[in-house]
Amino acid sequence: MKKIINNPADVVQESLKGFAAAHPDLVSVHLDPIYVTAAAAPVAGKVAIVSGGGSGHEPLHAGFIGEGMLDAACPGHVFTSPTPDQMLEAAKAVDGGEGVLFIVKNYSGDVMNFEMAVEMAAAEGHRVTNVTIDDDIAVKDSLYTQGRRGMGVTIFAEKICGAAARAGQDLKSVAALCRRINENGRSIGVALTACTVPEHGKPTFDLPEDQIEFGIGIHGEPGRERRPILPADELIGGMTTALLEDPRYERTARSWDPDENTWVEKTIVNEPFHKGDRMIALVNSMGGTPSSELYIAYAKLEEVCASKGIHIARSLIGPYITSIEMQGISISLLRADDEMLELWDTPVLTPALRWGM
Amino acid sequence: MKKIINNPADVVQESLKGFAAAHPDLVSVHLDPIYVTAAAAPVAGKVAIVSGGGSGHEPLHAGFIGEGMLDAACPGHVFTSPTPDQMLEAAKAVDGGEGVLFIVKNYSGDVMNFEMAVEMAAAEGHRVTNVTIDDDIAVKDSLYTQGRRGMGVTIFAEKICGAAARAGQDLKSVAALCRRINENGRSIGVALTACTVPEHGKPTFDLPEDQIEFGIGIHGEPGRERRPILPADELIGGMTTALLEDPRYERTARSWDPDENTWVEKTIVNEPFHKGDRMIALVNSMGGTPSSELYIAYAKLEEVCASKGIHIARSLIGPYITSIEMQGISISLLRADDEMLELWDTPVLTPALRWGM
Repeated sequence: MKKIINNPADVVQESLKGFAAAHPDLVSVHLDPIYVTAAAAPVAGKVAIVSGGGSGHEPLHAGFIGEGMLDAACPGHVFTSPTPDQMLEAAKAVDGGEGVLFIVKNYSGDVMNFEMAVEMAAAEGHRVTNVTIDDDIAVKDSLYTQGRRGMGVTIFAEKICGAAARAGQDLKSVAALCRRINENGRSIGVALTACTVPEHGKPTFDLPEDQIEFGIGIHGEPGRERRPILPADELIGGMTTALLEDPRYERTARSWDPDENTWVEKTIVNEPFHKGDRMIALVNSMGGTPSSELYIAYAKLEEVCASKGIHIARSLIGPYITSIEMQGISISLLRADDEMLELWDTPVLTPALRWGM
Repeated sequence: MKKIINNPADVVQESLKGFAAAHPDLVSVHLDPIYVTAAAAPVAGKVAIVSGGGSGHEPLHAGFIGEGMLDAACPGHVFTSPTPDQMLEAAKAVDGGEGVLFIVKNYSGDVMNFEMAVEMAAAEGHRVTNVTIDDDIAVKDSLYTQGRRGMGVTIFAEKICGAAARAGQDLKSVAALCRRINENGRSIGVALTACTVPEHGKPTFDLPEDQIEFGIGIHGEPGRERRPILPADELIGGMTTALLEDPRYERTARSWDPDENTWVEKTIVNEPFHKGDRMIALVNSMGGTPSSELYIAYAKLEEVCASKGIHIARSLIGPYITSIEMQGISISLLRADDEMLELWDTPVLTPALRWGM
């Protein structure tokens, strides 16, 4: 294992130490329990947005803390869910009186712990709710997850809901917007190589030199199938077609009602993408894929979309939701309505996404 | 070789196609010869700044084209210098009447070709000059270079000189500022793995599983020595100490005088860093190193600097000058005077660096 680390058990804490030292104007790092808050939090009169999950996906989530995006993030150990006490303390630290939205990637551990945190925060008198992001079309169920896994649509949700909260929308509006983003977003990923969790010291899986994993999860969970490595146009063409042809997907999701203080089941539906849709696209490195390859992928993505009458109105290209040093790529598409597009374009000032401020 | 590419010979052109499609508001890509210009170029009354070099170091240079930074970049084949005609056409396309500064990383091919382009542009009546960046303290001469190689200080030069040009400084002022940046900057890098040039299809060198290359160049050129992989604190401590203890370094550099239309030799001196210096720091991924490791490195860099009475006033952390997918890290320090710091903080709007706009 070749990494720029000290004791593998200390990776998260030491990385957060550097993160705090580099961005004192933007974030505050808390260590017992571990959570990171915006330097300006709590902001009175603003809905607070909190996310979190296992570490190893940086810049997600802590890199997106700051004005116009997240108020707090809870990093777990590498590829391990954070605990409810981290989430509760983060929520308490950033609640500015208008309540807290938890944005949760759909992994069973994350979902369970955020649900516990919801109940604990509600019991302490906080207005709180939760939205689960389950955008990965590759598999129905997987190693760590019931239903589709959470992937790059999480970044759309964090940016757009962060902007909505900054603009003064209330908790129920921001949560409804977040659900709408989830219902209009889809992702798929491929791995060219595995990654190595520092405390394990060896790659998460073996992938022969001529094979890729199509439909990989962000923890190296198996995807749809192993395939021979293909030319980029075939690979990205196949990923794009999978996204554009993904059928209607309906499921229910449990969400806390902050008025009734009880769980409610909501029906969530992703309708298929259609000709005429206008997209925000994310072409994401899983960590080790260079930007030259991401742009080759973007060229093909745009070509296929254009051939189907689908317009990419905005794009984000780079390493945003990673699997440590994995070589690979994921593509996320969000069918954006006017409100989403307007909120996407508003200023943001975080360590990893920064524009307009 | 596992890469998201089609024909290895087409990587640069296909990547630029995606780059153009993703950033039509910021850049224009020209293909015969290959160069990339700012969408707004030429800007009348503003000094134009042009850089370039082999591809494979993205986002450098084309990712830094836009308002407040570069006016144009000339990408060569992967790890191969661009040709003088690319540089000449780029200069002609962006000269807004106040002349053109070529910022050149010190590699023999780049230097030779940019010098030819200087003479060609001058012969066509353009006011033009050149500054060479030679900041890599690892080695005196190397595989492709006489003297110290060009590394991360190039990014400081492009950002700060870009801001100076935008603020209305004239060609000689911007060039003098660029030389001052070079005289106050130092870099050093390490490689944990090699990278693979697409057209070669195999790694640029063999590095055993327990070894790193200390003092690597950005093309995988050999560094000072091979060492066993060390804990991050020892590795980054050693790199930081090498930067902070680097002795006085004096050399001459050839620069075109745009008034006299002739070459002049200038003496260039890097004085040692001292207690009380105020730095802009770059902690750079060579491509495949994840941000968690960069922040662990930053924590140690800051600690060592602080222990020597050196203050890091600003930092930039991420993949900015890469070697394709190489795992490794480089650290650059710039002793920043008030003018540099003020210009560093001004808005910039490019594909890879974007703040304040």
